[in-house]
Amino acid sequence: MTLKEKSLALHEQWGGKLEIALRAPANTREDLSVAYTPGVAEPCRAIAADPALSYKYTRRHNTVAVITDGTAVLGLGDIGPEAGMPVMEGKCLLFKQFANIDAIPLCLRTKDTDEIVKTIALLAGSFGGINLEDISAPRCFEIEKKLQALCDIPVFHDDQHGTAIVVAAALQNALRLAGKSKESVHLVINGAGAAGLAIAELLLSLGYRNLTLCDRSGAIYAGAPSNNPAQEAMAQRTNRKMLTGSLSDVIAGADVFIGVSGPGALTKEMVATMAEKAIVFAMANPTPEILPDEALAAGAYIVGTGRSDFPNQINNLLAFPGVFRGALDVRASVINQEMRHAAVEALANCVPNEVLSPQRILPDCLDKAVVPAVAAAVAQAARNSGVARV
Amino acid sequence: MTLKEKSLALHEQWGGKLEIALRAPANTREDLSVAYTPGVAEPCRAIAADPALSYKYTRRHNTVAVITDGTAVLGLGDIGPEAGMPVMEGKCLLFKQFANIDAIPLCLRTKDTDEIVKTIALLAGSFGGINLEDISAPRCFEIEKKLQALCDIPVFHDDQHGTAIVVAAALQNALRLAGKSKESVHLVINGAGAAGLAIAELLLSLGYRNLTLCDRSGAIYAGAPSNNPAQEAMAQRTNRKMLTGSLSDVIAGADVFIGVSGPGALTKEMVATMAEKAIVFAMANPTPEILPDEALAAGAYIVGTGRSDFPNQINNLLAFPGVFRGALDVRASVINQEMRHAAVEALANCVPNEVLSPQRILPDCLDKAVVPAVAAAVAQAARNSGVARV
Repeated sequence: MTLKEKSLALHEQWGGKLEIALRAPANTREDLSVAYTPGVAEPCRAIAADPALSYKYTRRHNTVAVITDGTAVLGLGDIGPEAGMPVMEGKCLLFKQFANIDAIPLCLRTKDTDEIVKTIALLAGSFGGINLEDISAPRCFEIEKKLQALCDIPVFHDDQHGTAIVVAAALQNALRLAGKSKESVHLVINGAGAAGLAIAELLLSLGYRNLTLCDRSGAIYAGAPSNNPAQEAMAQRTNRKMLTGSLSDVIAGADVFIGVSGPGALTKEMVATMAEKAIVFAMANPTPEILPDEALAAGAYIVGTGRSDFPNQINNLLAFPGVFRGALDVRASVINQEMRHAAVEALANCVPNEVLSPQRILPDCLDKAVVPAVAAAVAQAARNSGVARV
Repeated sequence: MTLKEKSLALHEQWGGKLEIALRAPANTREDLSVAYTPGVAEPCRAIAADPALSYKYTRRHNTVAVITDGTAVLGLGDIGPEAGMPVMEGKCLLFKQFANIDAIPLCLRTKDTDEIVKTIALLAGSFGGINLEDISAPRCFEIEKKLQALCDIPVFHDDQHGTAIVVAAALQNALRLAGKSKESVHLVINGAGAAGLAIAELLLSLGYRNLTLCDRSGAIYAGAPSNNPAQEAMAQRTNRKMLTGSLSDVIAGADVFIGVSGPGALTKEMVATMAEKAIVFAMANPTPEILPDEALAAGAYIVGTGRSDFPNQINNLLAFPGVFRGALDVRASVINQEMRHAAVEALANCVPNEVLSPQRILPDCLDKAVVPAVAAAVAQAARNSGVARV
């Protein structure tokens, strides 16, 4: 049986990957008189007097909504809300399994940014956090920004920030091995959608100086007619040498390639033109921009991909469970830059010096030490930056 | 410890009455490759090609949203969305415990009917049904009606229809004991909000002819200046004798009192003026319109209340789990009048003739035979009326 056949058969057998479980008994009249009427009126009254008590008397403190509009699901694109649900359920499965967070999958029947913002904002009182998922760029930037301004709980678009955090941690360790500094390296990010722009944003905030973004039309520069507003804003802060031309033009001499694009985007010939000790993160799924063997043969020093069957898997799973765990633990009102930086540092430090190697720049995705380490760092950063509420 | 103290202490200890449980394993890389990427892409593709497959490959077939705006929570009134959550979690607990339905509690931060309708309609692709809860009248009528027109899944306002179904079943059995017919009895419904109007609507559809609604201002009659639009529409179909005056005026000679009002609304003196073999359903919670002992002493033949510590508990719990179970089982697009009638009949028949008595006109709330019986009848009615989709 192929993986596709197996996945269909198991999804049918499971009949959904999540269900509700009860934390309160409901067997006897007395049970019901406490958990439901008339006893339930008492926590209602308490919360009405102080809405913050919703974190004490309901599941809000541990509950996150995983919300999509179905416009950028996996590599499948705009497949609609119902078809996005298997991924949302899968994401919620990961939230529970890795961080014991109760995540609720919601798929919206609209692509209108204002409708999406409005709908989610009206739901915010039911959750401790919002994980936006698989919403296409550049809409996702506006949605996240407007929503965070409206909500008193964290709003986190994982395709942006989760990816960026893991890339930044991987890069930190890779540069240490390569003996290069973030201030000096030239990085090329191929793919200027949600992930590419968020990676650029986070790396700039961490002190990286020399970044060039590319997309299918080549290097992105200030004033390029094909730029959307988010790309234009980023172009003004990157590509300071105003490079133009295709990826093969700008990759020459670069220290780092970060691919969030598609299979085959990076060739052996391009890798061969990169600087000494080149770092290649080829994260297109399921087929990377270049296969690790080819990249290494062409001279790359460190190669990471999104896949679990190669070394250095760069996977959001290393970030979002710990980030939300930390945010929920201190009832953060937002996941800010300080918290993202703390997550990067904590994740990078999950690989001790004695095991750090070109084949091991990140911890294993299933490493149970990652979530507590990231969560603790994120919680502390929330406290330090004044956004923790407990 | 009082019930109030106990409820607060237990709600804090539970830290939420619901959580997410996993139906798919997520322990190994292989697990993740099926439940998440890359395997999850296959059910996504299948659903994109045929959205009805969302019922096969996701939990939609068994998932209901329990949604409130927090405006009419229990007897507490408009306490806001966060404060409504303990009740919504409690309702979801009942859905799971009694019908194995996975219910998701959602509290909306708006009281605007159009915003509520829009928000829920945009979420409908994530659920197999919508249970509206604790939304104040008359807004609830418009919200339910508009929403059902927009949605391809059942929309059911339990405070209306759940209550009406249980009252109608109780009444059917009570009239059998009293030897009276639905065509001949005069019923007085005290309380003309969501529940009172829905009870009147259902009873009219079942063939009851002589109904009078009252509220605080007395009998509701066509053209009364205090009527809201829903009350005016109902006034034109009830109170054919154009009775006016207070409850004590219209109750004289009535066969049935149905109270969805408040404590003390019905006095012994009023009961004494009712017809022979009077039926009194005093459902105000937690304190009924009249206590059973008083009503019986004043001459009532059968008395029911909302409370579990008196005979004949008239509780929604006898209806909504079975109604939704039946609707979900056949993937009904709506819960229509035929299905509600089937639920009434099935629920009434849950009390066999040999045990039917003035102290036992309804099954026990915890009777495990009720949900399967109601569900089977509702499912069959959905098939017969052409709204079943499997």
